[in-house]
Amino acid sequence: MRHFTQVSDVGNLDLLIQEALLYKADPFRDQQKGKFKRIGMLFLNPSMRTRLSSQIAAQQLGMESVVFNAGADGWKLEFADGAVMNGDTVEHIKDAAPIFGQYFDILCVRTFPTLTNKAQDDAEFILQQFIRYAQIPVVSLESATLHPLQSLTDIITIEEIWRAKAIINRKPRVVLTWAPHVKALPQCVANSFAEWVLAWGKADFVITHPEQYELNTRYTQGATITHDQQEALAGADFVYVKNWSAYNDYGQVHCTDPSWMLTAAALQQTNQARVMHCLPVRRNVELSDEVMDSPSSAITQQAGNRVWAAQAVFSQILNTLT
Amino acid sequence: MRHFTQVSDVGNLDLLIQEALLYKADPFRDQQKGKFKRIGMLFLNPSMRTRLSSQIAAQQLGMESVVFNAGADGWKLEFADGAVMNGDTVEHIKDAAPIFGQYFDILCVRTFPTLTNKAQDDAEFILQQFIRYAQIPVVSLESATLHPLQSLTDIITIEEIWRAKAIINRKPRVVLTWAPHVKALPQCVANSFAEWVLAWGKADFVITHPEQYELNTRYTQGATITHDQQEALAGADFVYVKNWSAYNDYGQVHCTDPSWMLTAAALQQTNQARVMHCLPVRRNVELSDEVMDSPSSAITQQAGNRVWAAQAVFSQILNTLT
Amino acid sequence: MRHFTQVSDVGNLDLLIQEALLYKADPFRDQQKGKFKRIGMLFLNPSMRTRLSSQIAAQQLGMESVVFNAGADGWKLEFADGAVMNGDTVEHIKDAAPIFGQYFDILCVRTFPTLTNKAQDDAEFILQQFIRYAQIPVVSLESATLHPLQSLTDIITIEEIWRAKAIINRKPRVVLTWAPHVKALPQCVANSFAEWVLAWGKADFVITHPEQYELNTRYTQGATITHDQQEALAGADFVYVKNWSAYNDYGQVHCTDPSWMLTAAALQQTNQARVMHCLPVRRNVELSDEVMDSPSSAITQQAGNRVWAAQAVFSQILNTLT
Repeated sequence: MRHFTQVSDVGNLDLLIQEALLYKADPFRDQQKGKFKRIGMLFLNPSMRTRLSSQIAAQQLGMESVVFNAGADGWKLEFADGAVMNGDTVEHIKDAAPIFGQYFDILCVRTFPTLTNKAQDDAEFILQQFIRYAQIPVVSLESATLHPLQSLTDIITIEEIWRAKAIINRKPRVVLTWAPHVKALPQCVANSFAEWVLAWGKADFVITHPEQYELNTRYTQGATITHDQQEALAGADFVYVKNWSAYNDYGQVHCTDPSWMLTAAALQQTNQARVMHCLPVRRNVELSDEVMDSPSSAITQQAGNRVWAAQAVFSQILNTLT
Repeated sequence: MRHFTQVSDVGNLDLLIQEALLYKADPFRDQQKGKFKRIGMLFLNPSMRTRLSSQIAAQQLGMESVVFNAGADGWKLEFADGAVMNGDTVEHIKDAAPIFGQYFDILCVRTFPTLTNKAQDDAEFILQQFIRYAQIPVVSLESATLHPLQSLTDIITIEEIWRAKAIINRKPRVVLTWAPHVKALPQCVANSFAEWVLAWGKADFVITHPEQYELNTRYTQGATITHDQQEALAGADFVYVKNWSAYNDYGQVHCTDPSWMLTAAALQQTNQARVMHCLPVRRNVELSDEVMDSPSSAITQQAGNRVWAAQAVFSQILNTLT
Repeated sequence: MRHFTQVSDVGNLDLLIQEALLYKADPFRDQQKGKFKRIGMLFLNPSMRTRLSSQIAAQQLGMESVVFNAGADGWKLEFADGAVMNGDTVEHIKDAAPIFGQYFDILCVRTFPTLTNKAQDDAEFILQQFIRYAQIPVVSLESATLHPLQSLTDIITIEEIWRAKAIINRKPRVVLTWAPHVKALPQCVANSFAEWVLAWGKADFVITHPEQYELNTRYTQGATITHDQQEALAGADFVYVKNWSAYNDYGQVHCTDPSWMLTAAALQQTNQARVMHCLPVRRNVELSDEVMDSPSSAITQQAGNRVWAAQAVFSQILNTLT
């Protein structure tokens, strides 16, 4: 694996999951593997779990990590080719990225979508330029359309829980349900979760959302999609709760219907489903307190697994470095 | 010692002081003790000495530290139970703290008081939720009412200086004096200094402040309290200078009388007292330049001791981790 | 070498350059040299390359580095002697710097000029106070008038390239040319480049700029200075492009003439010159895309060399520490 930006970058997903679980069992088993390697973590947008889990994963592999907050620590980057830079951007990605390439062995980048320029976001305009100009392996810490470290974590968590249940005669029913929010959010986590669950192939996968919230079909081929949340939840083993803004009418909010919030009552219809969320979560808007605070929630376990996902990814990239 | 938030968390204060002084004599004597342990440092408010000394103390014990600035690096936390999170708070402490508990072995938190909600500050509303939900040892880097790492440093400094004087027939006279300031400040450092000096029990302790500046009596039982600064300073061996806002008329400023500023003339009445301050200090408002720049000042020595206080505390908490 | 703030701090410049190139050949050759030493990096102003390269250089010498962003992490410092601190400055340099001196073995500081108070900037008012009060070796990460780590990098890069050409019968012609910009910038990089090239003594050095852009003659003694860019570029082996604001009419912008932008056409007059810039660069304002993206550019190589310059400097300072 050279870059890590989407599920198709992964050679063998099962192997990657197993490697993550080995690190969970023994975090320092490869404590010298990254010695003399340096990983740069560039945040164009805020981050908590991704930031912390990536730093920790790097430490546990013996890599030096250097964190850089564009904006707070530095300045605004220019991404437009041929720009006459007489405005407020201070440095072009064509000049900044090669320096990261000189200073680091692996570059991690977090960048959010515009939610206004659909073509630019779909093309992963910013992330792709880092890949093009840095000339070293690039790990997405969430990009305009995807959040692969989150999705790897999600699959690991589902596999862990399902394995513990020891049910071998059927696949788990995994439901991704839209939830209300107070802001227009990216589609990344939802896109990415769909992409990874489908690539993993070990679940019956259902997506439910209000009308006008269809995701990009690039990511949902193979999923059952319904506007009826109740129907989707029936018999679910896992319910992944997430808000996203509209993809077709790009970045718009069409629904704030509170009945889409996942409650304990709604969970009754499931097969004692475990509830997942990538965090941060708006309590009593996306998910009720009673669900969040119940044993149904797998959310803390899921967030904890972020470390092992990042560690497995960094480890596989280290394999490719001389 | 599991948590470190107040003097009563300390089993044997004398032992803790001695341990700090051993680290001062040999900073790297336990350089492997914290290997494979990770300490998170969460700043809800700015910090310089506490931040730097805690990072250094952790390094010297071989621990990995990860610093996270809420706000700059992340987002606004919600602390109200049952909140419908449709406002500007992005994540609930009930969800964030358990993740810190998964990622770290020890969690350090800095949080300031509101200075408007007395009941909430007195209850250590924010710090207590980190303790409750993180489920790992929590170290206060200053909280709503106390600043225990500062106070441990203060006691260490007094003991160091007093020991060097080799006076054995009497206790030192330690005076905490209020000083003017341009802002309404927390009572933390003053509360905490009183609490620790009294628990230490090896000083005659006097507090002096203008009327209406009484501290919470929870912390001052056993101290002599006077409104007459001159009387307080007579024969003092140590003078600790600090501003605080009113506690009873909570958070208010009742006095800006510049005669409360500690000057060289005022120091004449003392027993060649050493002057202490936790820093940052407003020169020529709290303390005159002539005092700050004189050999009377023990302030740089005191700030230097911050490292050893933190190192002793982290070391004792490491003892309790498997 | 105790401090590193200007070329005269360097004992033997050739030796320092060779040491940097040895680190480039083998970054971890002194990986234990800085063990148990701690370097503080204080940023009063933003930084990217300087920040990253200094952190990396310290890591490669086995030093612990602690980064502190004044402002973001802390508060505003006071520098005026005798100030009555009843305004917005929170801590005096006289009190803060000695603490850095206690916490660190080496202190790095970045501070920009006012561009309004010429006497203060010329006196390096801020940097000198850090040196005076910290009482430990101080490394400039760019100051009011100079940027020595950049200049050392620049000389290393010129030496590397020139050596590869194996021309021994003449010195390279090195041209520093002013370029337009959208803001009033410091003179630091230009001052410092002039100072270092002249001290190095192995180049024919030409400075070209529009009228009213004379640099401080303290730094340019021995250089050929012309207002005719074309004349300067003729036969150049290296062209260093940089904007600066006026020094005599301090901090003012007198020229925005786009004909001063370095283009491929202008480069035709040179001896296939390699183009240098300290970055960040305003594309199509200071330098055209066609130059930036051509093999003429040595800019990425130059920025990469920042690491080795910093590593050689830190290494020589470590030699002086017990």
